Parts: sequence; structure tokens; C-alpha cells
Amino acid sequence: MTAVAARSDLDGLMLDIGARARTAAKTLALAPAAQKDAALGAMAQAIRTATPDILAANAEDMAQARANGTAGSFLDRLELTPARIEAMAAGLDVVAGLPDPVGSVIAAWTRPNGLAFERVRVPIGVVGVIYESRPNVTADAGALCLKAGNAAILRGGSESFRSAAAIHRALAQGLKAAGLPADAIQIVPTRDRAAVGAMLAGLGGAIDVIVPRGGKGLVARVQAEARVPVFAHLEGICHVYVHAAADLELAKNVVLNAKMRRTGICGAAETLLIDRAVVATHLKPLVAMLLEAGCAVRGDETVQAADPRVTPATEADWSTEYLDAIISAKVVDGIDAAIAHIERYGSHHTDAILTEDAAAAERFLAEVDSAIVLVNASTQFADGGEFGFGAEIGIATGKLHARGPVGVEQLTSFKYKVRGHGQTRA
Amino acid sequence: MTAVAARSDLDGLMLDIGARARTAAKTLALAPAAQKDAALGAMAQAIRTATPDILAANAEDMAQARANGTAGSFLDRLELTPARIEAMAAGLDVVAGLPDPVGSVIAAWTRPNGLAFERVRVPIGVVGVIYESRPNVTADAGALCLKAGNAAILRGGSESFRSAAAIHRALAQGLKAAGLPADAIQIVPTRDRAAVGAMLAGLGGAIDVIVPRGGKGLVARVQAEARVPVFAHLEGICHVYVHAAADLELAKNVVLNAKMRRTGICGAAETLLIDRAVVATHLKPLVAMLLEAGCAVRGDETVQAADPRVTPATEADWSTEYLDAIISAKVVDGIDAAIAHIERYGSHHTDAILTEDAAAAERFLAEVDSAIVLVNASTQFADGGEFGFGAEIGIATGKLHARGPVGVEQLTSFKYKVRGHGQTRA
Repeated sequence: MTAVAARSDLDGLMLDIGARARTAAKTLALAPAAQKDAALGAMAQAIRTATPDILAANAEDMAQARANGTAGSFLDRLELTPARIEAMAAGLDVVAGLPDPVGSVIAAWTRPNGLAFERVRVPIGVVGVIYESRPNVTADAGALCLKAGNAAILRGGSESFRSAAAIHRALAQGLKAAGLPADAIQIVPTRDRAAVGAMLAGLGGAIDVIVPRGGKGLVARVQAEARVPVFAHLEGICHVYVHAAADLELAKNVVLNAKMRRTGICGAAETLLIDRAVVATHLKPLVAMLLEAGCAVRGDETVQAADPRVTPATEADWSTEYLDAIISAKVVDGIDAAIAHIERYGSHHTDAILTEDAAAAERFLAEVDSAIVLVNASTQFADGGEFGFGAEIGIATGKLHARGPVGVEQLTSFKYKVRGHGQTRA
Repeated sequence: MTAVAARSDLDGLMLDIGARARTAAKTLALAPAAQKDAALGAMAQAIRTATPDILAANAEDMAQARANGTAGSFLDRLELTPARIEAMAAGLDVVAGLPDPVGSVIAAWTRPNGLAFERVRVPIGVVGVIYESRPNVTADAGALCLKAGNAAILRGGSESFRSAAAIHRALAQGLKAAGLPADAIQIVPTRDRAAVGAMLAGLGGAIDVIVPRGGKGLVARVQAEARVPVFAHLEGICHVYVHAAADLELAKNVVLNAKMRRTGICGAAETLLIDRAVVATHLKPLVAMLLEAGCAVRGDETVQAADPRVTPATEADWSTEYLDAIISAKVVDGIDAAIAHIERYGSHHTDAILTEDAAAAERFLAEVDSAIVLVNASTQFADGGEFGFGAEIGIATGKLHARGPVGVEQLTSFKYKVRGHGQTRA
């Protein structure tokens, strides 16, 4: 077979996947909540039952990844254990228990002519999910799309191909058990990387939105190349600003949590801004606390002067997402300087002010142009579960449609239902 | 100057416009409602005062368009009269009177850990508006963007260049009078068509969303080439389905209005679907009524048999947006066939069912995948004003962010404000 023929085969395969997703989406859009929830429950059970198969598939993926000399952090994300598989199944049960967003009335009003308007949630249609090594995204993303009435086209990393396929077989069993179309959740059945390009082009109009799940390289490629909308964040350069009126004990607790609870998540703080007004009282204790917790501190001259263990921050540090036990720290001249720094170097993801001054807090909330702005709380709350959304497919920093944690509601669109009794327009 | 230098000059000009819009957007995002409304009022007054200048500029545009042999319908859209200028000014006053969407709390909840969440409307940022011959879009679109706290970059048709510039001068006076940045509403100061391409590419990330206002050719180009989100509808192939349980008198009134009130708007009905169950009673009167109102009817065989004046519909008629006193008409075998026809040939814009059967009405509302679905009312209600939005920048058939009439609320995004008292994540 020539390369041209192979490419044409792939295009045909991908367009067929898109067309089948579009057809399945029509059924899903009208599926009752109970049927979707039954499918989710059956999927959870099928995953539990299939644990040995999933582990066997994952062992093959792991063996190949090791043979390829893959890095340890990658292997950790790829590896499945009985506990991780149970967590995946439990996640499906959680999604099953969420309220169905489809059909809920967002707004209702009646016009003077008697026309009754309703703005009602409906599914978006078809969601493409492109991910990397973590096989659990197969279940997590598939479940959230299904709950919101969307068909999903999943494309996992080639390294987790067998694991994702094994999980997908369990999802398919759950769909079948509930009488939902098998094409409601499809997985791209080839490792050919050109499949990603086809999805980014939209599969001939079949894909409504793409959600990338993975590292910065993947997200950057998706954002640059996608011809369809994308729900994503490229990075989370999250700031904690210790204001002039910050309580020191509160600041120590929140800064430690924001940076060190988990350093590898997008809501982890990467830069500490300290108001010059509290340098004398707050700087040394905060820096010492971070250093003693095992966090490297890269600071400006004032921060360096506070502790000999602080290393100099370079200009690049202010726009670096470490995702590690490292923090950049800078003294700023008041709230305006703090907001200006965040605007210049931040990623519009999540930023926090620590202060007992309500007016300063409200200014920060209003003026910092980020998806999530917090007062006196850890940036690590940037998470759909912590928002009460039950689950999330990711966090978006774009401003259209979805912003912040993307839960089932953000995976819906809406329509207007208008009920009259013969009204005509004048 | 070489062509390359000219292109580079244009690129520089457009990037500068984008950068200035982005800066103005930061001021606008925080501008109080009263200041924006004062600007809108001053803009309305400035337009009234500038009526002679606007008419003079328009006369020049009209003379050149006539010299170029431009069609009459185009000249009608281009022409300004004192009444049309007053309508523009009055439209600005209407927008000034609308509630300010910015800062309104869409949702608020508190989590068990005491964190208080608010989802609050904020502006999107920078809106690019690309339009054709109608100079009034300059004022209408500029005002709606301003009200929602967005900076606007307006690019009018080259034929209306002088008229749009004269209107824009009045808008600039209003902004200045209220102390808002002049860059809040910019107009592209060149007829060079490459400026449109630069806007569609997003001006280096400065444009958040593009709204095309004009004919199908413009919208199709924008949808195909834009690298930023677009709020638009390509066409409105709107259906009225006369169900088996439709009241004949109601149907006559609504069908007449849906088709003939104004034939050139996107919400005008283009196809009449008649249930086979009421062919004997409803078909002839409806067809005769349309013909007598001056509407050409293109029908399938059954419709042709109902009246000798009906001409045969071809396959192409079912997907044609006439925007004229022409309707295609077809007999369908029940509600499933009606919904299937709309799914196959429609444009997901606006569709109506006429019926006294509540269950049928609810099925149609649920299953027709259009931005607006109506029961027993004219499709010509597809309009932001009729929805109670006060004004609209257009109608969108996409499913993300904005769908249906795009009013000031749809020109906003949101952020999450989270207020705590030291919460850390477990």
C-alpha cells in the first residue's frame, strides 16, 4: 500500500468516526437522564469486572514504554493499579449521580405579546478529546461527555493505546447495557498521529469542540492548529499576592498550601508577590516557611536579602510554570503593582489576594482578569470538584463559552423554546 | 513604495489598532455603567448634531457607488436619510437605557468549607465587526460592544467608507465627552481589503471574537478564514410546519406573517411543511392565501395539485434561502418526517410548529436542533428586540457561547470570584 493510499484510508476512517458520532449525538441529545445514568453505572461495573484485562493491557503498554526508555514521570502517569482502576469506576458513579444538565431551564420570561420564552440547556453535539499518557482520561472524559448528552471521540496517546482500548471496551459494554448507541463514545483505533491532525481539522464539521488533556506541548499544538473551538488552558502561572493588610498566620497557611499541597497541578502557585508594606513583618517568615517545606525560592533583591538560601530570580522566572517545588517571589509596591505584574506575566488562570482589607479584596477580584480570582484562599481550589461541579474535563482560560473548571454544564449549549398562541410580528 | 512595504505598513497599522483596542478594553472593563451610558447618550447627540456632515459624506459614497454601477438594492442599504440617522441616534439611546450586564452575578453558592463562589459577568475584551454597505452598523455595533464593556474594531465596506467614518467621528466625540478612551471604538482607516484578512487572523491575539454583518458571501468567508471565534449565521432557512392538529385560521395568520411581513430578513420562512393529515382541509387555503399575498409557491406534486399557480419545487429549493416573496412547500408524513426534513435541509436558525396538540409541540421543541424553536408563532420573532434583549448585534447559529440573538449579555464572558477566610485544600 502506498503512503498516499494509507493517508486516504486514515482520512476515510476518521470521517466515518465523525459521521457516526454525529448520528449518535442525535440519539444522545434526547436520551433520558435515567438511561444515561444507567449507562454510566453499567460502565463503572464493567470497568470493575474488566480489571484483570485492563491491567494486562496496561502491563503491555508499560513494557513497551520501558523498552522505549520512557521517563519515570511518564511511566507513573501511564501505570494503572487496581486502586487506580477502582478510582476510575468510582468516578463514573459520581458522574452518574450528578444532576442532568440537559433540559434544565436557564431562564424563562414572557413578553407583553404573550410569547413565553425559555432558554433551555441542550448538548453541544460532538466533543473531541485528545490526551496523552493517562489512560483514565478515557473513562473520565467519556463519562462527562455522555452525561451532558454529547458524543465523544477520544484519541489517547499512542503509548497508552492498549490500556485506553481496554477501558473503552468496558465503556462500550455499559452503553450497550443501557441501550445507548455504541458510537456515543468512540476511540480512535489507530496509533497514526495523523489522526490528531484530522480531529483538529474538525472531521468535516463533525466535531464541535476539542478538549486537549495533557502537557503544554499538546495544548499549544491544539490551540495553534485546531479549526474548531478548544476548551483548554496552556499553563497555570498562578499568583498569591500578600497584601499590606494580610494576616501573617493566614498567609503562611495559604501560601504553603497553594504552592506545596501538590506542585504538579495547574492551580499550584508559581509566584509569590509580597507588598512592600509588609516586607519587615511578613517576608522573612513566609520565605523561611517555604524553604523549610522543601520549596526552592527564587527572589528579587529584597527577597534574596531576607534569606541566604534564596537564589536570584531572572526575568524568565516570572513567566515560568515550574510545576515543581520552586516558587518565584517578588516585592511589589502596592496593589496596582501586584495587578500589573499579574497582567503582564500571568496566564489568566487563577490568582489570589490575601488581605483583611475588604476594599482591596474587591479591587483585586474586579481588576485581575483571570478565570478564577480568590480572596484569602488557596489557588489549589482551582478544580471542578472543589467548585461543587462534581467532576471536570479540564480548566479553560479562554473567555468564550467555558471559563474556569469545565464541568457538565459547560459541556452544554442552549436553545430558545418559544411558546405562543398565534402571535405574529407587527 | 513597493507592494511589500505597503503590506508591511498595513500589518503594522492593523497590529497597532489591535494593541490600542486591547489597552482600551482594560479601561472599559472597569468603566461604571453611568459612564458608558453617558458616552452612549453623548454619541447619540453627536450623531444628531453631525447629521449634515453624515449626509454629505453619504452623498459622496452614493455618488461613487452610482458611478461604479452598483445595484439598486445595494444603494438602498447604503443610503442615509435624516430619518435613518435619527433612527441610529435613537438606537444608541435605547442601548444606553439597557441594564449594564457587566458585574451582574449569574450564580452564587457557598461550599461546605465556607468558600463563597460567585460567577460574575465580565466583558469579553475586543470584538471585531466586519460589515458591508450599511453605515448604521458603525453606530449599532459600536454601541452594543461599548455597553458590554468591550472595545470594538469596526471594518465597514469600502463603498460606505466615508459615511462610516463620519458616523465614527460622532461616536468618538461621545466617548471623549464621557472621558472614555477614544480607542474604545476604532474604525479601520483604510479601504485596503487586506485589513479584513488581518482581522480574521486575530491581530496578533488582540481580537477575541469577530461578528460579520452582511450577506452570505461575507459570512462564508469569515467562517472559513477566521482564526478566532465567530458569532454569525450563514443563512436562515426557516420552516413552518403545519401539524395535523393545526388550527387553520391561526396557520393562515402565522404563515402569512412568517413569510411575507418582511421577506429579506433571516427569520423569514422559506419552506412550508404541511402534514398529510390536513392536506384536504389546510393545503388549498394556505397556498391560495400565499399566492394572493403575492408570494410565489414552489411545491411538491401534492402542493402543485392544490393550485395551478404552484410551480414545481426542485431538490435545490429545499435548501434555498430566497429572502424574497417565494416559498417552497411540501407535504410531509407526520411530525417525524417534518423534523427529519428540517434536520436535513435547515440551517439550525429558527423553525416553528403550528399545532393545538401540546405533546406534538413539545416533541418539536425538543427534537428540532435550531437556535430558536417556536410553537404557534411567527418565525419573524427571531430578533433580539422581540426577545426583549433591547438590541442585537446579530443572530448566531453556532452552539458555543452565543446562540440565537446576540445581545449585550451574549457579548460578555464571566469570571469566578471566590471569597474565603484562610481556606486551604485538603
